[in-house]
Amino acid sequence: MGGMTNALSFEQKLENYARLLVRVGVNLQPGGKLHLSAPVGAVELARLITREAYRAGAAEVDVRYVDEHLDRSRLTDGQDGAVAFVPEWFAEERLHKIADGYAFLTLTGNDPDLLGGVNAERIGVRSKALAIASRPVGQKMSAFAVNWSIGAMPVASWARKVFPGVPDGEAVARLWDAIFTVSRADEADPVAAWDAHLKQLARVRDHLNGRRYAALQFTGPGTDLTVGLADGHVWAGGAWAAQNGVVGVPNLPTDEVFTAPHRDRVDGVATATKPLIARGTTISGIRVRFEGGRVVEATSDTGQDVLTALLDTDEGARHLGEVALVPASAPVARTGHLYYDTLFDENAAIHLALGRAYDFNFERGKVRAEDGGNDSLIHVDWMIGSAQVDVDGVRADGEREPVMRGGEWAF
Amino acid sequence: MGGMTNALSFEQKLENYARLLVRVGVNLQPGGKLHLSAPVGAVELARLITREAYRAGAAEVDVRYVDEHLDRSRLTDGQDGAVAFVPEWFAEERLHKIADGYAFLTLTGNDPDLLGGVNAERIGVRSKALAIASRPVGQKMSAFAVNWSIGAMPVASWARKVFPGVPDGEAVARLWDAIFTVSRADEADPVAAWDAHLKQLARVRDHLNGRRYAALQFTGPGTDLTVGLADGHVWAGGAWAAQNGVVGVPNLPTDEVFTAPHRDRVDGVATATKPLIARGTTISGIRVRFEGGRVVEATSDTGQDVLTALLDTDEGARHLGEVALVPASAPVARTGHLYYDTLFDENAAIHLALGRAYDFNFERGKVRAEDGGNDSLIHVDWMIGSAQVDVDGVRADGEREPVMRGGEWAF
Ligand SMILES: [Zn+2]
Ligand SMILES: [Zn+2]
Ligand SMILES: [Zn+2]
Ligand SMILES: [Zn+2]
Repeated sequence: MGGMTNALSFEQKLENYARLLVRVGVNLQPGGKLHLSAPVGAVELARLITREAYRAGAAEVDVRYVDEHLDRSRLTDGQDGAVAFVPEWFAEERLHKIADGYAFLTLTGNDPDLLGGVNAERIGVRSKALAIASRPVGQKMSAFAVNWSIGAMPVASWARKVFPGVPDGEAVARLWDAIFTVSRADEADPVAAWDAHLKQLARVRDHLNGRRYAALQFTGPGTDLTVGLADGHVWAGGAWAAQNGVVGVPNLPTDEVFTAPHRDRVDGVATATKPLIARGTTISGIRVRFEGGRVVEATSDTGQDVLTALLDTDEGARHLGEVALVPASAPVARTGHLYYDTLFDENAAIHLALGRAYDFNFERGKVRAEDGGNDSLIHVDWMIGSAQVDVDGVRADGEREPVMRGGEWAF
Repeated sequence: MGGMTNALSFEQKLENYARLLVRVGVNLQPGGKLHLSAPVGAVELARLITREAYRAGAAEVDVRYVDEHLDRSRLTDGQDGAVAFVPEWFAEERLHKIADGYAFLTLTGNDPDLLGGVNAERIGVRSKALAIASRPVGQKMSAFAVNWSIGAMPVASWARKVFPGVPDGEAVARLWDAIFTVSRADEADPVAAWDAHLKQLARVRDHLNGRRYAALQFTGPGTDLTVGLADGHVWAGGAWAAQNGVVGVPNLPTDEVFTAPHRDRVDGVATATKPLIARGTTISGIRVRFEGGRVVEATSDTGQDVLTALLDTDEGARHLGEVALVPASAPVARTGHLYYDTLFDENAAIHLALGRAYDFNFERGKVRAEDGGNDSLIHVDWMIGSAQVDVDGVRADGEREPVMRGGEWAF
């Protein structure tokens, strides 16, 4: 009989992935410039991306290899001054590049346990210093001043965490397989596969924008939560046009549609369905109670100190900046793994984000307090979705409509 | 009986080497900032250097991993525009850091054959674009506006070239051994060993500065060359005080003392005693004839096109900017290897440099045409020394004194 089998070699899939990141992710144009940030272990992929970019007609590819062990060394070997120090040119260079029209491509790939055993206060000081320094850059990125996209590189320390007990080489190979699958890099024509996927995301997004819900109601095991939506909220997801008009995809993979909650209109309880990885720490079993939009109680089974430190970053850290809908049958969820990386885990489940909202989730194109927009130094996604969760849309007149049932779209 | 044996493990030598680069090379001070440029394969050493720098009290360590394959990709996959393009911020960021007092540490480690088969014209366009863009930075470095130092990392492609036919792992281990030896990282107290070595270099340098020779006369197989010295020339070598007063060592290893030739007073013939590696090409068997300071004839057994392209860079490329004396018994020479890297090979033999002179080789602290100073976009060292070469110092009145005999100091 002989069905279709997936005949692509590893090298072909890796080339497909590089191609997707360049052509679909940042959609690099002839004469364009690319800033690529990649883990120092991602040499092979970085070279393929660079080749693909030059073949697409890039005028410049600037690759920055990132070594997270150097960040750890600052925290364990450095003086207090080093922990707090961020040079001016850190933001300046990026702002310079944004003004110059660079596209930004980032490959994640971190050891989820990197900062285990490091003094939590030092981690907090460092995170805050970086968040403050990155702020002007983040604002430009959030406004899509240029195209940007995020992909992944399965470094061994990460693969080990996703596949515990499996030898490094096999763990990395299995993580590659998963990434290729959920990114559609194992398709013979991956660009066409993405076109089709992006059309489906656009359909859902446009439907939700048409309904103008005042709130969403989430019910499931340990969760009974009403999330009021911001005034003039906009649902986003899938492909985006940057200010230059070039349409790219900021996350590969991406299966979410999301918008801005109203910072003062969230009430009830929510229980996380997956651990949250933040500041190198695994925070599992999160249970949160909201009153008038504010987190008034937050407990977890592990990582309570980091969770508390996150919430204490600033007042906005106790309010929501994002609510995102993802079907329980999304590709990432179907792989059945926990990835310890937001890029993947947020595409496996409905999630909320504590902290900063996105400008593009507002009709006015700006996070404003009078519309219920929330501001903070942090933006941390945590997952509350599963096949046991139902979502209702609540109209301004109180009428309810099913949005998701058993974790799947109900329209 | 039991003599002293070298009991240090590889890890101890590597730590010693990192320590030497930080404490002796750039001599990083508490609160100082470090820019480290390292091959992407030098992760282990870069982490040790970073740790050592933070332990020395660094406020900031910024590591840039360099991947030479990306440079090759630009030349083979990029459009013409990409080959010529250098972003403004390339120099701006470094100038910013210089103004901010950063020390600069660079680890060399290149595939000597990296650019084999690449279009020579494209290589020339790229080299020239980078030289022009780097010029303001080079001027600051040449004036020791900040501390800087160069060390090495034996990447496999390089080790393979130094030890042809030897398996990669063993070749890298042997190259490490050689680097540890010539850098004195295999000594139990490497910092003390460097103190003693630097005292000896200072003795030679001070002697030559006291003699005020008008010219040096080189004689050996295929070489009969008179090199007039620039007016107000200064011999340099070993340790240096940067403008901040901090004394460091710009090259590890270093066994040379050197000064500025007079750009119009070089006559005779010189035959290279080692191949020159330039622009990814091996140029062997160089024979050059000078008249009135200018190269009027230059031939080589291999790499003639690159040699010609180098000489045609600009008018200054046909004149000398450096003459350096190194005893034939220097540690690098004693290892007996050809390293295909100037950092090592120039410390194995007397050498000349085509192109730009250094400001610090002049009493006035500036390369000036009226003193016989030479200017160019290039500075390329090539070796003419061996145990068969004699050097005479020629005083202004024509009197001659032996400086080297059979490649060794004669005073
Ligand atoms: Zn999200
Ligand atoms: Zn988010
Ligand atoms: Zn030299
Ligand atoms: Zn030189």
